[in-house]
Amino acid sequence: MKPILPKPLRGIIPPMVTPLLDNDTLDVVGLENLIEHILAGGVHGLFILGTTGEAPSLSYKLRQQLIERATDQVGDRVPVLVGITDTSYDESVKLADIAYKHGVSGLVLAPPSYFPVAQPELLEYLEHLAARLPLPLFLYNIPGLTKVKFEPKTILQAAQIEGIVGLKDSSSDMTYFNTVKAKMKNYPDFTLLVGPEELLAEAVLIGAHGGISGGANMFPRLYVELYNAAMARDMQKVKSLHEMVMKISTRIYNVGQYGSRIIKGIKCVLNQLNICNDFMAEPFHKFHKPQKLKIEKYLASIQHELQPLEGQLHQIPMSTLEGKTTYYRQSH
Amino acid sequence: MKPILPKPLRGIIPPMVTPLLDNDTLDVVGLENLIEHILAGGVHGLFILGTTGEAPSLSYKLRQQLIERATDQVGDRVPVLVGITDTSYDESVKLADIAYKHGVSGLVLAPPSYFPVAQPELLEYLEHLAARLPLPLFLYNIPGLTKVKFEPKTILQAAQIEGIVGLKDSSSDMTYFNTVKAKMKNYPDFTLLVGPEELLAEAVLIGAHGGISGGANMFPRLYVELYNAAMARDMQKVKSLHEMVMKISTRIYNVGQYGSRIIKGIKCVLNQLNICNDFMAEPFHKFHKPQKLKIEKYLASIQHELQPLEGQLHQIPMSTLEGKTTYYRQSH
Amino acid sequence: MKPILPKPLRGIIPPMVTPLLDNDTLDVVGLENLIEHILAGGVHGLFILGTTGEAPSLSYKLRQQLIERATDQVGDRVPVLVGITDTSYDESVKLADIAYKHGVSGLVLAPPSYFPVAQPELLEYLEHLAARLPLPLFLYNIPGLTKVKFEPKTILQAAQIEGIVGLKDSSSDMTYFNTVKAKMKNYPDFTLLVGPEELLAEAVLIGAHGGISGGANMFPRLYVELYNAAMARDMQKVKSLHEMVMKISTRIYNVGQYGSRIIKGIKCVLNQLNICNDFMAEPFHKFHKPQKLKIEKYLASIQHELQPLEGQLHQIPMSTLEGKTTYYRQSH
Amino acid sequence: MKPILPKPLRGIIPPMVTPLLDNDTLDVVGLENLIEHILAGGVHGLFILGTTGEAPSLSYKLRQQLIERATDQVGDRVPVLVGITDTSYDESVKLADIAYKHGVSGLVLAPPSYFPVAQPELLEYLEHLAARLPLPLFLYNIPGLTKVKFEPKTILQAAQIEGIVGLKDSSSDMTYFNTVKAKMKNYPDFTLLVGPEELLAEAVLIGAHGGISGGANMFPRLYVELYNAAMARDMQKVKSLHEMVMKISTRIYNVGQYGSRIIKGIKCVLNQLNICNDFMAEPFHKFHKPQKLKIEKYLASIQHELQPLEGQLHQIPMSTLEGKTTYYRQSH
Repeated sequence: MKPILPKPLRGIIPPMVTPLLDNDTLDVVGLENLIEHILAGGVHGLFILGTTGEAPSLSYKLRQQLIERATDQVGDRVPVLVGITDTSYDESVKLADIAYKHGVSGLVLAPPSYFPVAQPELLEYLEHLAARLPLPLFLYNIPGLTKVKFEPKTILQAAQIEGIVGLKDSSSDMTYFNTVKAKMKNYPDFTLLVGPEELLAEAVLIGAHGGISGGANMFPRLYVELYNAAMARDMQKVKSLHEMVMKISTRIYNVGQYGSRIIKGIKCVLNQLNICNDFMAEPFHKFHKPQKLKIEKYLASIQHELQPLEGQLHQIPMSTLEGKTTYYRQSH
Repeated sequence: MKPILPKPLRGIIPPMVTPLLDNDTLDVVGLENLIEHILAGGVHGLFILGTTGEAPSLSYKLRQQLIERATDQVGDRVPVLVGITDTSYDESVKLADIAYKHGVSGLVLAPPSYFPVAQPELLEYLEHLAARLPLPLFLYNIPGLTKVKFEPKTILQAAQIEGIVGLKDSSSDMTYFNTVKAKMKNYPDFTLLVGPEELLAEAVLIGAHGGISGGANMFPRLYVELYNAAMARDMQKVKSLHEMVMKISTRIYNVGQYGSRIIKGIKCVLNQLNICNDFMAEPFHKFHKPQKLKIEKYLASIQHELQPLEGQLHQIPMSTLEGKTTYYRQSH
Repeated sequence: MKPILPKPLRGIIPPMVTPLLDNDTLDVVGLENLIEHILAGGVHGLFILGTTGEAPSLSYKLRQQLIERATDQVGDRVPVLVGITDTSYDESVKLADIAYKHGVSGLVLAPPSYFPVAQPELLEYLEHLAARLPLPLFLYNIPGLTKVKFEPKTILQAAQIEGIVGLKDSSSDMTYFNTVKAKMKNYPDFTLLVGPEELLAEAVLIGAHGGISGGANMFPRLYVELYNAAMARDMQKVKSLHEMVMKISTRIYNVGQYGSRIIKGIKCVLNQLNICNDFMAEPFHKFHKPQKLKIEKYLASIQHELQPLEGQLHQIPMSTLEGKTTYYRQSH
Repeated sequence: MKPILPKPLRGIIPPMVTPLLDNDTLDVVGLENLIEHILAGGVHGLFILGTTGEAPSLSYKLRQQLIERATDQVGDRVPVLVGITDTSYDESVKLADIAYKHGVSGLVLAPPSYFPVAQPELLEYLEHLAARLPLPLFLYNIPGLTKVKFEPKTILQAAQIEGIVGLKDSSSDMTYFNTVKAKMKNYPDFTLLVGPEELLAEAVLIGAHGGISGGANMFPRLYVELYNAAMARDMQKVKSLHEMVMKISTRIYNVGQYGSRIIKGIKCVLNQLNICNDFMAEPFHKFHKPQKLKIEKYLASIQHELQPLEGQLHQIPMSTLEGKTTYYRQSH
């Protein structure tokens, strides 16, 4: 019933934002809208409770609710991955057990973010943890947030632990990614996914299996098409779709001054698309009017620029929303 | 009944390690021993669930148990502070409510450690959080672990939020500490405590109100005496006690290679003193035989060197254990 | 007479190591060998006095000698670029004037490495400096060494300063590189070169104009062929040549423990190829016997693996050395 | 003739700013004024070409001129120390030889700032360099600027190299400083000086030999008196003078936004005191009008607050300037 997790896992697996009504309340209607919106784009999986999903900011109760509702909504259409990153080993295990109960296909784990862990300590932790987990585990490298990285040598060792099946790299350091790829040469089933969507094109061209592209919350079809074009070595199409991705990156993700602006930007767009609320969990707060106006302007321009691609895209993302009238609209 | 929290809070408030039998089980006997051992040293408070207490690594259930048992054991002898640092605002609030229910005197909070928060975002978060907390809050600056620091300007603004009453600084950056102190000149009730025990002497001499000294888990009297000597400007005694503190720092805290060696060293000593188990929560693991032997040697030497100070110390820490026969001894 | 600097500058411009006999003496014969070896690979330019050239470690006298001899040896065969990065503005200007006098085609400058400079200060510095320089200037982004980066916005502003013509990015952060590329869309003549050779394939595929590949000191033809294959979108060839580049990276550059191991590895290979001395300028020191043996083994294996590519490569690099008997051989 | 360098070197050795007329021209009159102003404060030495002296930004010609003129002006009144920090070993040696020729008493060296050097490499570099130096050498720890620190273990080893006689620590990390001091216990002649003036009081109280206090360019007597008070354990006086130091730090050094604001602030004050020009070497630029007005206001207030201390200070710094009419006044 539950979708089989391909080895390696390929394609676009969007890191879903978590629609919220307030700091401890899911935007249930928004969540349903968002999942339908994303799946309509033809994605290859769904990753919930990642960084883009603000997982570390959510209470355990809410994380559990999200797992329940998201897996319900997705059903067996695509594999669902669940982030279990936590400073506490036992809470990671608990989340994993809940995920398993709800038919999730895989787990995703960054190193604990508070204490700086040395690589041998990290490997021992992975050995202990993987033995307790009921599902395949993807490592998640994001040293900008966790301080600790998975060194290429550690990944090579971890790949020999039963249950550890892949890596998502969000370091933006492509020398690192290439090094991991070279070291994992003899492990063709070990999944290598790239986080930053700005790198999706080049990563797939040099052999990544896919991407965890945040922008696919907004425009899922665009990233799926870019992935397909890169796999097909259709370099002309790669070029034009990659440029569109960079427009989103340099516009939508560049409103506001702080690191939190990327998630804020995505949620703001989703709100303007009538998909879900733009509430941000503490310690962040959604955009105010001036930022919203900028996003509105950029969004219009991007939607306009997506038009000429319509022939190339099987379907422009916006059209997935047509005819839907029940979407939650936040008054703002 | 509950001890009144002095304004400012002065003296030695040890950051208690959390005695564990395994990753999710308190060492209950060890916990009682440890609290009695520490309180016998004449400390001015007890801080549980801090960094030294491995709080981020513990499950919520275990954190709750610890709050219950520790507050029970301490009773109204000294104020208890509880760390509520968490990546999730709601979990921080829940911990605070539990702490309040058990008669705790104050709360301690570092910035959330996963997402890098900008100072204006941090201030807004503090405003929202403080309004929800049932107890006075101490800010906890430890940028080496959280990446984010409380900038001096942010502290000055935070001091004007109802319920925010002090700062514990573990940055080791004394230019920062002096800057905060200068900026807080007109807030004489705002508590300024220093984390690293290596800085206790100088911090108190220049006006800190006390220290959250990890070594006071092992030798509480030593730190209390050093605090007293510094307050009394007894510079001769400050010198000799500070040198003893530095011996502990350069020996006990210097066994093993990783950052985790300080907590491991304290737990190893406590185990050798028959006080509690030395189990470390994931992602860390207790010392192996070779490190234990080094600790044993250093401990003997330090205990020996503490003898001549006996006249100066009202009581050497070890003697607090005499005649006690029920202490938990871990076989190793 | 002097080669015209193309706009944009395209292709492989190797960052030449500086052959030394001792800390302040050029290996003159080795320098001649090396230049001939590199140029025989069909490269599109030569970059001297960069990071790989250990420029910051060399005395000014020696930097001047190198400019003289290298430009003499190269003649008008390819454009020569000279690094003028310095903590002192005036010394940068002096080096630039010397470079100009010897027919150099362009200059390369990283931010001064001692003081952390804010972006507005950096831009003002560039404005003042560019006005004094007699040659076109390429910016050099290498924040791992200089701490300061050229923010994309700064580059956009700098591109409007007369004489600033391009960027070499050695950050390994491809999100950064893609962002710069997107921002510079309307400046098609502004050169964008990538530093780390591990990124050469993907960078050229997404639109970089070429690479400053350190490995081209050893195997210039390999990098030229990879550049050509990427430009021609010959994805099969890109794949196999990129894998060879990664073998060099994960083997040759992975001997020894410190950051200095990359330059040491290149110099060690060049010495084993009879091209030049492997002396390293202070504060570094060349490999000892055990590392040399590892390099020897890896080199043999790489030369062997380069054989099957011979058909694809117009010429394998080693063959450029055949019949040459006058090369300097260091006794080791 | 040349002053003997005490072992250890004690007291206040101000890191002199370098008065400039433009980027490559000394403000000769300002330099004479400044030296007389500083020496009138009763300082124990003079340190030229340090960080505060903007040494890395100055051409070698200018550094040489400064050594000549400063040593000439100081004569045998106090020992002069000269910074020889450089990315190039040979340039460091050349500066040392020039310093020796002009009767300098000691040299100061931070690790080379461009390449990140590992500790064993750094130690080997020190061994090689110290053997070539004609004068005693002080190590200079300032990892915020050089990235590389002198680890306590490296210092212990370096202290056994002939000619290495002390450490200036500008890390602001007092746990580090205390650790070095504890490790150097058996080397009572090894000088330990603290950089940041905010730490002068506490450092001397716990056993530092003195300070390299930047503020002593402006108010030399204040820092000398604070040093004397700390040595005499006159805690009342320490408190009031330390508070004055913190006022300077939180006001004068807090105008402007970038890291360069400290040197800019000192130069701006010196200019307003009619002592020397406020020109900053590239890549920095002096304060504009709004910042100058702030400095003017703060300076007036500090001068006013220094009045009541007059009884405690043997002489207020300003009075050293009275009756002097020949000071260079920059029009601004």
